[in-house]
Amino acid sequence: MKVIADLCLVPLGVGISVSPHIAECQRILRAANLKHVMHAYGTNIEGEWDTVFGAIKRCHEAIHAMGVPRISTDLRFGTRTDREQTLDDKVRSVEEKLRT
Amino acid sequence: MKVIADLCLVPLGVGISVSPHIAECQRILRAANLKHVMHAYGTNIEGEWDTVFGAIKRCHEAIHAMGVPRISTDLRFGTRTDREQTLDDKVRSVEEKLRT
Amino acid sequence: MKVIADLCLVPLGVGISVSPHIAECQRILRAANLKHVMHAYGTNIEGEWDTVFGAIKRCHEAIHAMGVPRISTDLRFGTRTDREQTLDDKVRSVEEKLRT
Amino acid sequence: MKVIADLCLVPLGVGISVSPHIAECQRILRAANLKHVMHAYGTNIEGEWDTVFGAIKRCHEAIHAMGVPRISTDLRFGTRTDREQTLDDKVRSVEEKLRT
Repeated sequence: MKVIADLCLVPLGVGISVSPHIAECQRILRAANLKHVMHAYGTNIEGEWDTVFGAIKRCHEAIHAMGVPRISTDLRFGTRTDREQTLDDKVRSVEEKLRT
Repeated sequence: MKVIADLCLVPLGVGISVSPHIAECQRILRAANLKHVMHAYGTNIEGEWDTVFGAIKRCHEAIHAMGVPRISTDLRFGTRTDREQTLDDKVRSVEEKLRT
Repeated sequence: MKVIADLCLVPLGVGISVSPHIAECQRILRAANLKHVMHAYGTNIEGEWDTVFGAIKRCHEAIHAMGVPRISTDLRFGTRTDREQTLDDKVRSVEEKLRT
Repeated sequence: MKVIADLCLVPLGVGISVSPHIAECQRILRAANLKHVMHAYGTNIEGEWDTVFGAIKRCHEAIHAMGVPRISTDLRFGTRTDREQTLDDKVRSVEEKLRT
């Protein structure tokens, strides 16, 4: 089962700068060979269910290992059985409507 | 790793009544022996990471098997290493502050 | 326009105990006379759009006034034009399916 | 109060193609002169609180006016008092960590 997800991870108890932890998470997604695109409030991820959720688990483990005592994450994710869809398809589909 | 989650699953392409699909999901959480509490915009779930995410995967599979072509889910989840915390602890902690 | 919402507010930069800030937010919802029910990962809120979003803005303002430098919130909200629905309706509708 | 938000709007009861409704929402954000960047699972928005939430309300109204009976939205939003931050700052801050 393919999944398209959007991961927004918030480390708590380490002050207000969270970018080192988000960067660590990007390295984990890259190491997992998952297609991913960062934006200003999360990261789009595309892949097989188990690969995606395995990487997200490693993100939580790695960020705790950096000394973060608490993490609160918001994850959106979608699956569909009618057809394959990629990250690019989703954006392109809206952009085509905007052109007309 | 223990996780406290809140699952909000939205079936698409099946009209506007989604309660049969949410009910199916409740049955899966119960069968997994996961502590869970439904509210008006999701379901709190408490358990070991792999058990929780395994059950959520089965929810998506079961709802697709009911004929739903597309599912969009929003999941909040938190982990912490400083101490154990339960669903009840989280609510009680705020209620104590409200009393004073 | 009526709205049913679920508010999950995460204060950053104040350590890992967030219950005093959540409690302040509960007081604001109560003062706004909004129907609201707290659960372990957020608070259900029911009311008119402007009343609900006005109260949420005051929550952010009040928590910053308590000395919190950064807040990251996840809010789910739903509107519908086909019929009126309450917090209780949503839960009851699933519970009926579970009984059969 | 400035806010950085991420809007993910899901129309229900209109089948599985939601791109016409998302496109309508993009037009509303543009008309409001709000800085916004679409990605595969939502749209980043940056602006003053009342402008941002006013535009989101018009999105719900416009999509209902297109015949959609039910909308379920997930919105992340952040405010901070320690310093100004833009959409670009947030991404750049992580990218700098990835380079080192």
